[in-house]
Amino acid sequence: MDLARERNLNELVEGATRGDRRSLSRLISRVENNRQIAKEAIRILFPRTGRATVLGITGPPGSGKSTLIAALGKELSSAGERVAVVAIDPSSAFSGGALLGDRIRMRDLAENPNVFIRSMATRGSVGGLCRAAADVVRILDAASWSYIIVETAGAGQTDLDIVELAQTVVVVLSPGWGDEIQAFKAGLMEIGDIFAVNKADLPGANRTVLDIRGMLQTYGSERAWQPPVILTDSLKRSGIPDLLAAVREHREHIDKLGHLKGGLSDGESQLLAAVRQELELEFIPELRQSHVFTEYGKQVADRTVDPYTAASRLIASLKK
Amino acid sequence: MDLARERNLNELVEGATRGDRRSLSRLISRVENNRQIAKEAIRILFPRTGRATVLGITGPPGSGKSTLIAALGKELSSAGERVAVVAIDPSSAFSGGALLGDRIRMRDLAENPNVFIRSMATRGSVGGLCRAAADVVRILDAASWSYIIVETAGAGQTDLDIVELAQTVVVVLSPGWGDEIQAFKAGLMEIGDIFAVNKADLPGANRTVLDIRGMLQTYGSERAWQPPVILTDSLKRSGIPDLLAAVREHREHIDKLGHLKGGLSDGESQLLAAVRQELELEFIPELRQSHVFTEYGKQVADRTVDPYTAASRLIASLKK
Repeated sequence: MDLARERNLNELVEGATRGDRRSLSRLISRVENNRQIAKEAIRILFPRTGRATVLGITGPPGSGKSTLIAALGKELSSAGERVAVVAIDPSSAFSGGALLGDRIRMRDLAENPNVFIRSMATRGSVGGLCRAAADVVRILDAASWSYIIVETAGAGQTDLDIVELAQTVVVVLSPGWGDEIQAFKAGLMEIGDIFAVNKADLPGANRTVLDIRGMLQTYGSERAWQPPVILTDSLKRSGIPDLLAAVREHREHIDKLGHLKGGLSDGESQLLAAVRQELELEFIPELRQSHVFTEYGKQVADRTVDPYTAASRLIASLKK
Repeated sequence: MDLARERNLNELVEGATRGDRRSLSRLISRVENNRQIAKEAIRILFPRTGRATVLGITGPPGSGKSTLIAALGKELSSAGERVAVVAIDPSSAFSGGALLGDRIRMRDLAENPNVFIRSMATRGSVGGLCRAAADVVRILDAASWSYIIVETAGAGQTDLDIVELAQTVVVVLSPGWGDEIQAFKAGLMEIGDIFAVNKADLPGANRTVLDIRGMLQTYGSERAWQPPVILTDSLKRSGIPDLLAAVREHREHIDKLGHLKGGLSDGESQLLAAVRQELELEFIPELRQSHVFTEYGKQVADRTVDPYTAASRLIASLKK
């Protein structure tokens, strides 16, 4: 590795962990843009990670995630916490406008010295975005941001990945969110540790709470953690202390159990994600370039071998 | 392998390819439930695959996918085609009711001897569902169903996987589908080969067509295939012949180019999917059980090594 680059990277990490916002922003940009730099940076700062509370916030568009995050940010920062918000938007190539509006709602928050806001958009694949987001969370953690809030658009893939990133996933729904979007709801039921029914002043809010409780009972009544459903009103900031209390309670639950979702410890879960990345970003591209891959691909196309047999042979040949 | 099981499986495959519906249904159930049986079945029937036109149909809830599929099924079957519909519903543990309604809309179709309908729900993971769906498509292809229509709920993950399954992806949207769901739209823009604006009689249908054309220009004006946007009315069955003409045109385009999305041939694309599955379903679970994984996981938890370095070491140690 280039020594000058390493020195430069070390300086950025030092700056970021000292509290210099410009270093932090530049470090994040470099990590977003280059996977090799990301790996170097994480190697340097990883020993300082593991202290932050990482909250994932997701939910369908229009449920008021951004205003809820603004309310959480105000509450936490006035209690002396340092709050970082990472907004992940896999679609912003198109919908820049829509989410920019949300960012404006957070403007008050952005001027607070105890708050740091960063938006991340897709550059290439959604998978790449989530890889980068995990590293950005590690950087913020090492830089002593005590609460890191990761917001996703609530549109599929990234919502599943948020589960790996966050200790606690808060699903935000609003009353009157129709039955026709049931399919989205189901996916969200699976990943939520806490449910916030936002816009508590709207008609039907209490019914929505009962509705979600019902769905949770059908779905996961055997789970050790029973997700609470909390009414919030981001504008009046009611329900926010209850929500934060639930977050702390969930954190204690996790700490007591000593493991996260899927039966893995935090260390194992981070390792597994890194293994998957290595396989997807180094092994697969290498494989696709290889002569054996083209050869087996032809055999599959000719129907002389089926894909599963070909895949087993291919993997076996690489292990040698 | 158990000889009796193999004989039994061979009989089911023979029955299914001979046109026996009961054998077909039983074969599909066995393949859905057991990955080893799936691999055996695909090994037996794979040489007979590669002739069907595989259509993916996706779009947000309420856009009228099921009625459109019913209209397509009627049109195709009266032209003498054998049409199979595979409806993938990752959420049905919850929303069985909602999609059952859709199935009822297809009831006329189900009584047609040239039509076969199968619903698939999540058993475990979404990834597992998509694995099974790919195999079900192969079975139907081998059993001489000339058109295979794969329908997904339009809710994230499965929509991306449909791209690997289908030669042609039709995205169904309806007029008045609000701007606030822009984020979903963006994801759908990426995967659609053809866009159907359904419910052509609703106000705003023409505006929606222009809207989509505009988005497509922003997004992928450099693409070799420019997705057509077609007005359809499933109830009056208008636009259906245009839609099928576009499907045939897209098929010709693919055949001429000799490769599918991502620069891979059809054989390579099936091989790559199988390699990913082998890694995910055999390598990763094995890895998680291993002593080295637990050991490296502890080191990551203690922050004595970072996840990327640990992952590289772990993979290197397994290659030996």
